[in-house]
Amino acid sequence: MTATDPRDRGAAAHALDLTELAQQLRVDAVRVADLAGSGHPTSSMSAADLVAVLLAHHLRYDFNRPDHPGNDRLIFSKGHASPLLYAMYRAVGAVGEEELRSYREHGSRLEGHPTPRLPWVDVATGSLGQGLPVAVGMALAAQRLEKVPYRVWVLSGDSEMTEGSVWEAVEYAGAEHLDALTLIVDVNRLGQRGPTRHQHDLDAYARRLRAFGWHTVEVDGHDVTAVDHAFEEARATGGRPTAILAATRKGRGVAAVEDREGMHGKPLEDAGSAIAELGGRRSLRVETAAPPAVPATAPTAAREPELPRFEVGDEVATRDAYGKALAALGAVRHDMVVLDGEVSDSTRTQFFAEEHPDRFFECYIAEQQLAAAAVGLQARGFLPYASSFAAFLTRAHDFIRMAAVGRASLCLVGSHAGVAIGKDGPSQMGLEDLAMFRSVHGSTVLQPCDANQTARLVAAMADLDGIRYLRTMRGGTPVLYGPDEQFPIGGSKVLRHSRADRVTLVGAGVTVHECLKAADRLGEAGIAVRVIDLYSVKPADAAALHAAASDTGCLVTVEDHRPEGGVGDAVAEVFSDGRPMPRLVRLGVRHMPASATPEEQLREAGIDADAVAAAVELLVETAVVR
Amino acid sequence: MTATDPRDRGAAAHALDLTELAQQLRVDAVRVADLAGSGHPTSSMSAADLVAVLLAHHLRYDFNRPDHPGNDRLIFSKGHASPLLYAMYRAVGAVGEEELRSYREHGSRLEGHPTPRLPWVDVATGSLGQGLPVAVGMALAAQRLEKVPYRVWVLSGDSEMTEGSVWEAVEYAGAEHLDALTLIVDVNRLGQRGPTRHQHDLDAYARRLRAFGWHTVEVDGHDVTAVDHAFEEARATGGRPTAILAATRKGRGVAAVEDREGMHGKPLEDAGSAIAELGGRRSLRVETAAPPAVPATAPTAAREPELPRFEVGDEVATRDAYGKALAALGAVRHDMVVLDGEVSDSTRTQFFAEEHPDRFFECYIAEQQLAAAAVGLQARGFLPYASSFAAFLTRAHDFIRMAAVGRASLCLVGSHAGVAIGKDGPSQMGLEDLAMFRSVHGSTVLQPCDANQTARLVAAMADLDGIRYLRTMRGGTPVLYGPDEQFPIGGSKVLRHSRADRVTLVGAGVTVHECLKAADRLGEAGIAVRVIDLYSVKPADAAALHAAASDTGCLVTVEDHRPEGGVGDAVAEVFSDGRPMPRLVRLGVRHMPASATPEEQLREAGIDADAVAAAVELLVETAVVR
Repeated sequence: MTATDPRDRGAAAHALDLTELAQQLRVDAVRVADLAGSGHPTSSMSAADLVAVLLAHHLRYDFNRPDHPGNDRLIFSKGHASPLLYAMYRAVGAVGEEELRSYREHGSRLEGHPTPRLPWVDVATGSLGQGLPVAVGMALAAQRLEKVPYRVWVLSGDSEMTEGSVWEAVEYAGAEHLDALTLIVDVNRLGQRGPTRHQHDLDAYARRLRAFGWHTVEVDGHDVTAVDHAFEEARATGGRPTAILAATRKGRGVAAVEDREGMHGKPLEDAGSAIAELGGRRSLRVETAAPPAVPATAPTAAREPELPRFEVGDEVATRDAYGKALAALGAVRHDMVVLDGEVSDSTRTQFFAEEHPDRFFECYIAEQQLAAAAVGLQARGFLPYASSFAAFLTRAHDFIRMAAVGRASLCLVGSHAGVAIGKDGPSQMGLEDLAMFRSVHGSTVLQPCDANQTARLVAAMADLDGIRYLRTMRGGTPVLYGPDEQFPIGGSKVLRHSRADRVTLVGAGVTVHECLKAADRLGEAGIAVRVIDLYSVKPADAAALHAAASDTGCLVTVEDHRPEGGVGDAVAEVFSDGRPMPRLVRLGVRHMPASATPEEQLREAGIDADAVAAAVELLVETAVVR
Repeated sequence: MTATDPRDRGAAAHALDLTELAQQLRVDAVRVADLAGSGHPTSSMSAADLVAVLLAHHLRYDFNRPDHPGNDRLIFSKGHASPLLYAMYRAVGAVGEEELRSYREHGSRLEGHPTPRLPWVDVATGSLGQGLPVAVGMALAAQRLEKVPYRVWVLSGDSEMTEGSVWEAVEYAGAEHLDALTLIVDVNRLGQRGPTRHQHDLDAYARRLRAFGWHTVEVDGHDVTAVDHAFEEARATGGRPTAILAATRKGRGVAAVEDREGMHGKPLEDAGSAIAELGGRRSLRVETAAPPAVPATAPTAAREPELPRFEVGDEVATRDAYGKALAALGAVRHDMVVLDGEVSDSTRTQFFAEEHPDRFFECYIAEQQLAAAAVGLQARGFLPYASSFAAFLTRAHDFIRMAAVGRASLCLVGSHAGVAIGKDGPSQMGLEDLAMFRSVHGSTVLQPCDANQTARLVAAMADLDGIRYLRTMRGGTPVLYGPDEQFPIGGSKVLRHSRADRVTLVGAGVTVHECLKAADRLGEAGIAVRVIDLYSVKPADAAALHAAASDTGCLVTVEDHRPEGGVGDAVAEVFSDGRPMPRLVRLGVRHMPASATPEEQLREAGIDADAVAAAVELLVETAVVR
């Protein structure tokens, strides 16, 4: 797959003047930014020669069939160079002049930074340092799963090479010999506010990359022949990913801005003169090389998974149920892949890894790469479940946010939720995870309290869209539900209920069990209490909560999470619809925990059965509750 | 500062058998994990020789005066090796036998992962890959600000070298010639769930680090003489940070666990035999070398800052006010430092950089390093303000969470809040930042709506504790408040108020202005409306909100943020106290924005004046509002 076959080149390419094409791309970039009154023409102009050569001689892509499985993938990690990307789309005829002129307008597909609203864009970019880590996921798909010889090309800026996420990806790609991957660094020397740290010292980048096992090529990024050879070298290099380090000049081609500071991210002052200086408008048309034919694989109809079944009353950790459900689901869903951040013995993804080692990806301790690989894999049609401790998924927050911008579809599962983990202390406790995931656009947030519920929700997650999050616990909890119980997304379970209920306790995860204990104790004292298991935190079960509000008038939320952003906020949100509100009380983790046993932790946080019962008694004594 | 002075060595050190000391540390690590029934003895045992040599021959530290300004700093980045740290404290007499035995017990200072509850611990660790980035901040303090020749020693695991944050720090320290910094990597070959990627290939680490400009020393980590020489070499190396790559064996000294998989993070099965194999208990006492005398610097009494003053009615961006206030504050507060992630022209920290270049730190595009450097600087007594786009601060989420665990005191300021930024699109919009910061323990979250308010809040932040967050806007907003107006933390401003108010609008930032426009329009239509500027999102002004609830019965929150985790949740939280609730309605950004003008964005999100007025009219028509 790595040798260059001259037949790969587009028929029209040989006749095409690459420098002319590059100038066309520059002119179009200048034009659209001028029309929009904003954008990044200078960052586009530096990379125009690179993209012209790539497009005309190396990219194998059928723009009429963006879903062609043999298409190369191209990620503009420097997403602010969108004018160049859209100019490229015009050059291949995918976008017409009229649409090109809609750049950055309301309703246009040509956004300030590219998103998959365009069929040729696989993932959203615009937060720097994300393109390469996502591309690693795609290259893994190509080389390990699909076994299809497409290449993954990443156009990166030089400024973003300081992001740690880039070096997580560099390490991964080097160690995993991802030779389907080519990183093109547009070393234009100037970041947003001035010179980069290494300016035009290409070797500073090259020696770092080589130390991680990469092949590197240093090149004048405006010498189209040299660039052409560099790309050929990348395609011919086996066993290692290649980085093309291209020295370029920001704003190349227009003297007023070329290689000058203070010209980042704004239209050129005199676009007319600039276009004239660039040789005026052109309408060259590029035919890209066709992707290789890929034998169609008949999708196998997924059987119903044989989910693990747990005995009611047994003590089982929800993380164990997660791992076992994953393994079962993997047996029937061949599109499923699992990733872990070197804690598979804790998250229990090891159960999947043991049964389906070819679809398990060890990402080591690099949570940004973990999330990014999942994004790359889902862009190739796989269904990823990525796991680490809930606390450490905060490392991937920006990737998760951007995954939502990119309409990505993936499952994230965080273990070791809350103070209930016990002695390891606050650094290991997921106490902010619900807040993070609730705020992600279009997300689903689940927190099961027992093993059978976990297994069902793990299976249900597979069929949802967007970002799905499930939170598991370290310690065992009693199995409450039978193995055939159903748990619809957006539902809840009413576990205690009577006509005399004076207050409703709303728990999720470990606190469901504390609420049940409290309810039983209160019941003995003559205070009837409803208990709701709010396993679906987002969307929350508005019907059940409104019914509880109407019946009992007061809801007490109890959560092993910070008081902000979790179950308390989720329940309050349900009632933020203008209708009459019940009284609300929230119990959550308000202090900074230290080491202690799980029982001591729950007690100290004021979320154990005693605390819940005491809160209800206080509400009764003060006549808040009828 | 880099040459080794033999007088630096503790008097007792020469007589001390380093191997014996190391065995004592191992025995104590085994003992405390056994007593606790949990912990990481094997990860402690691998590094015992390294720590013994460091303690006896190289660390200059007065354990009776942890605040001595000349003390070296020691960060256990592998925080799970806390048994080794606490064994070390026993060896220097800082912790007695009784306290040592309280390891991981409820109420003990000896937590599962170290925190600054112990006076010798500067920062919390336990989320891997954080020690080195934080140490970079301390080394910057030593070399650029304090000009005191203390060293910063970091003990790191090999597994955590895959974290991108480590490579952000490696890049920073190399480029900035931080020779006060020594990284000791305990290459014990085994991560949590099995072998690391590079196992004992020390050169794999060394060539990567050298490519980033580091000096490296490869050493047998159990050869105390070789380790001693390696540390001397580190101290003698100028102009570059040094990494000691020490090949070690996890569980060293006890055959049942040494270099064996599956022995991570649990007590030894037979602690008695293990202790016997290690030679039994010892009570060696180490005298560390004294830190160098440091001339006392008289603290300069801070004058009142001459904050910028803005004319009511002018259009000013709050980010501009932030930058100008920073510069003014810096003129009177000499402990103040400012950090930015290569966007100082956008965040406007450039105004500070221009006036106080010696206290400005350009962190380039590396938001984890940005936050970590701030943590390191505050640990040395400085007052950091760290800025990037609000959206990109999500990259630092885990560092911010851990900063709270470590009782850090710092200010973070995120610009380009919300859809109001306009055409750049969702990748650049801070839409989840309030949710992230509200969930941080002990945080303060501020969102000013005008320039004078911003200046006052930037100054007020300086005197708070914990994690403070302020959110600024890209575009201009009219100045509403006079320059002498006061804005207490936890307060709010009631901007429209009458006895006839039928509903209360609660805005923050840009939405305050939309609420005012809506209120004026509604007033003309005969619907009196109260408007509250909730500039202090956390803590929120419970008194004003309760008064509004009591007076108007219905509150409509309007925010340029996701509906989850922000102003809507903050207001609902205020009412989650069991008291009768008002009706609540929340307007927020429920769709995925694309490119558009700021006005189009606010309209499409349903948070502009029209949308607010329409919502109120609907509430009136449906008789929700009286």
